[in-house]
Amino acid sequence: MTQPILYDYWRSSACYRVRIALNLKGVAYEAAPVNLLADEQMADAYKDANPQGLVPALAIGGRVLTQSLAIVEWLDATHAEPKLIPADPDDRAHVMAMALAIACDIHPLNNLRVLKHLARLGIDQGARDDWYRHWIAEGFAGLEALAAPRAGRFLFGDAPSLADICLVPQMYNARRLETPLDAYPTLLRADAAATALDAFAAAHPDRVAPAAAKG
Amino acid sequence: MTQPILYDYWRSSACYRVRIALNLKGVAYEAAPVNLLADEQMADAYKDANPQGLVPALAIGGRVLTQSLAIVEWLDATHAEPKLIPADPDDRAHVMAMALAIACDIHPLNNLRVLKHLARLGIDQGARDDWYRHWIAEGFAGLEALAAPRAGRFLFGDAPSLADICLVPQMYNARRLETPLDAYPTLLRADAAATALDAFAAAHPDRVAPAAAKG
Repeated sequence: MTQPILYDYWRSSACYRVRIALNLKGVAYEAAPVNLLADEQMADAYKDANPQGLVPALAIGGRVLTQSLAIVEWLDATHAEPKLIPADPDDRAHVMAMALAIACDIHPLNNLRVLKHLARLGIDQGARDDWYRHWIAEGFAGLEALAAPRAGRFLFGDAPSLADICLVPQMYNARRLETPLDAYPTLLRADAAATALDAFAAAHPDRVAPAAAKG
Repeated sequence: MTQPILYDYWRSSACYRVRIALNLKGVAYEAAPVNLLADEQMADAYKDANPQGLVPALAIGGRVLTQSLAIVEWLDATHAEPKLIPADPDDRAHVMAMALAIACDIHPLNNLRVLKHLARLGIDQGARDDWYRHWIAEGFAGLEALAAPRAGRFLFGDAPSLADICLVPQMYNARRLETPLDAYPTLLRADAAATALDAFAAAHPDRVAPAAAKG
């Protein structure tokens, strides 16, 4: 079988999630960088892979998967260990709710295409940064309350799950914009436990960024 | 067992999804209206049920479930027929990707709290309506391309799935804002097939709106 190809942008949260999941599952892959700053996701060559024109997409075993949460769920269903989403319906609903609290309620409001659109509407950089922090603060407050009762070292118990896979990239974004985080002790604890793992560390944007972006 | 309680706002897309799923599964429930226009979702009484302060939440069998997609997935795992999400991992990933293309890439950008926030930033009603249609058009174009190859009468084959459950409320929103829809024949076909079913029709906002909202 040919090596899976991840259509990847180093700073995309959704790509970062999939990189973590691939690493946790021990799936070797080749990264195909798609530079969102240059609108490469809208190019015909990429739209053949993903007609939505969004990253990530994962080409694996002859199929192309899209949407980060669907990709992680597929990896979890097809690669046994470690389990990233619990099988028990109640536990699964709890982990999914935490993941979706980030993937639906925070991240879509702050991604690059939305920030570009706000700029076109005349919203200046300072107000865009406030917008960014506002949705993180609102979302993290709810997530902290949702997570705290059943968290262990990680957001759900003592092993990383899809919830942590969503949390870590969102925390990276929060810190980039200097969002205050003291009010979220459960999230900070899980983030620290997760980022200490090789699978998370190797997926960090700084570890996968092209040399040009680092310069 | 006491009747399940759905914390519901008649015009919320996320609530509409859950109403459809409950109807498809034949689960009788009591609706507890939460008026988003009056910010009732932020009241302490509601936050005891859902600390995120978002609708919907479903109280069922002693647990409170949040996040519409997590709720539908839970209902599907715990109530046998009709299946709303395929069991096969490839099919499941396809249906989930379509659902997430709406739930992550369109709906979060257009919900009430975001429109209110844009108004606070000085974006006027006309520009807010353009914003709304922009994200629907962008999202539906991608979804049409994603759905077309494997659609039947519905977005995936000939039975309603989680993808249609997400599509129908988004189509309702699109029409409210008079978004042009001719470019999405697959979506229009699935929407027509779905809304012809009692389970979808009975969940329509006009069927569940409080009398005051209709007046």
